Amino acid sequence: MSIKIGFIGATGIVGSEFISLLEERKISVADLCLFASEKSDGRKIHFNGKSITVEKLEKSKLKNLDYPFFCYNEEISKESISMGAENNICCIDNSAAFRLHRDAPFVIPEINPHAIENHRNIIANPNCSTIIALMALFPLHQRFELSGFCVSTYQAVSRVGYSGIEALKQDIVRNFALSQEVFGEQILQNAIPKIGQFSFNGYSSEELKMSNESRKILSLQKLKVSSTCARLPILRAHSMSIIAKFRSPLDRGEAEQILSSNKHIDYFPNAFPTPLKQACKNNVGIGRLRKDTFLKNAATMWVVGDQIRQGVTLNAI
Amino acid sequence: MSIKIGFIGATGIVGSEFISLLEERKISVADLCLFASEKSDGRKIHFNGKSITVEKLEKSKLKNLDYPFFCYNEEISKESISMGAENNICCIDNSAAFRLHRDAPFVIPEINPHAIENHRNIIANPNCSTIIALMALFPLHQRFELSGFCVSTYQAVSRVGYSGIEALKQDIVRNFALSQEVFGEQILQNAIPKIGQFSFNGYSSEELKMSNESRKILSLQKLKVSSTCARLPILRAHSMSIIAKFRSPLDRGEAEQILSSNKHIDYFPNAFPTPLKQACKNNVGIGRLRKDTFLKNAATMWVVGDQIRQGVTLNAI
Repeated sequence: MSIKIGFIGATGIVGSEFISLLEERKISVADLCLFASEKSDGRKIHFNGKSITVEKLEKSKLKNLDYPFFCYNEEISKESISMGAENNICCIDNSAAFRLHRDAPFVIPEINPHAIENHRNIIANPNCSTIIALMALFPLHQRFELSGFCVSTYQAVSRVGYSGIEALKQDIVRNFALSQEVFGEQILQNAIPKIGQFSFNGYSSEELKMSNESRKILSLQKLKVSSTCARLPILRAHSMSIIAKFRSPLDRGEAEQILSSNKHIDYFPNAFPTPLKQACKNNVGIGRLRKDTFLKNAATMWVVGDQIRQGVTLNAI
Repeated sequence: MSIKIGFIGATGIVGSEFISLLEERKISVADLCLFASEKSDGRKIHFNGKSITVEKLEKSKLKNLDYPFFCYNEEISKESISMGAENNICCIDNSAAFRLHRDAPFVIPEINPHAIENHRNIIANPNCSTIIALMALFPLHQRFELSGFCVSTYQAVSRVGYSGIEALKQDIVRNFALSQEVFGEQILQNAIPKIGQFSFNGYSSEELKMSNESRKILSLQKLKVSSTCARLPILRAHSMSIIAKFRSPLDRGEAEQILSSNKHIDYFPNAFPTPLKQACKNNVGIGRLRKDTFLKNAATMWVVGDQIRQGVTLNAI
């Protein structure tokens, strides 16, 4: 099957990763159309030996595509995706615009591939942190039945795209204006526990995504989740310290066996992945698995995933 | 009262901080003797307008002191402190050598000042991470009765002294040898979830200190604690994401009131401290206090403290 793919937000960090993944995975593409904002109009991008011109987005151009991937912002997604329904095109959206929409399935192929069958022209891609956490928790949930989890994140600057990477670089040469604009504070040699906006209950939008999206993807309406999401001066790959509580008694050896035999997981027995080790890898790295000494039937672990790879890989699949 | 103080490990990062705190707090010192390893023998350090010569440590020189502070390593502490008992001198030890020793009280003046009365010539200073976590938890424990807590740390490189800071600087100029030696991996743009050695149950020595020391200081033998301690490319001040579980129902407003009225705490309502904001401050910064959505009767918070200041301040007091 050779398909027509369009990518909206092609000159951003996810767009670049997406294009290199299409090449790497040798996905047969009849036509690849690249769209971005006006300022990138006319820019050339290389794909499979050809040079493709980036175009300014116009709705009419989307009609000829089989799969438009939206990776720009919520506004563009909301405006354009109505077109998908009208023309019976399946839009894949990487923004948060449709994530909790009843008709938009939320798909992590390794966890809930069946959900894709119910789509009504929109498939929402979960938040990158949720994907990484659930890739680690789902195999254990299948055996021990997850009742809740808490997670503290150590998130990379690339989560916000090239501007985050540029901000960290500018900080190194002691020009803090960009990182203050992008992150609200200097990011170099700092930890900023605010990703998104704070809601009335004190949780940030990033933290609420972790709870709401996990319940939807795992179809566990009573799952108890809490998280603290912090940004660190790390270029790529998010790390997470997770405590997962199960309904069945947890056996550490069996849990290690489950994780180490999963082909989407790089398991580190008595060791740990780091963001540098896991950068640009498709698998989620898990290490330091141990019985939790605070909660009963709970496991503590250290999980690292390249959020750009993970998000895009899933869409591409 | 004018006292004779000796500092063993005077040219290290804690030694320097100690000396500047003695000056800042105008503590009346009759005599200050500074000791370090052979390589610093003869070095001059300024204190209250005088120049003090750093000497090589010899046990006989310790006999004339009122309070020798040991801030070098466990071996030196173990070798020298027997002298304290023989000469009825009260030694204050910052290493882990005596922390869990029955006869060595573990003192955080704001929490258990009474413990000092039972000393038998050794007072152990708790680990810096434990001090920061308990400064935040103790006021809430007094009202709501703590039953356990979990913590994920974001620790600074200065925890290992000047070599940690130098390692981070060397990483910036792309010479990774020192950070690989000091931390086992490049620290720049990384997160390393290993501080100390791993024990049989998978916890690191830093993580076990958090559990064991908290139980001893709070006199709560049944306190359930788990932690994941990670090192980040941050110069000074440790950050912590903490979930604390209480026996009494938690009221968020009352908890905020308790923290904001504590003179040892900088409380950030609907905001947060960062390691950059809290560096070189005596108070522990607490923010993002909210009801935990994973556990009942639990609070989630973000805590930041300058571990060099905290550790030394407590000793000095």
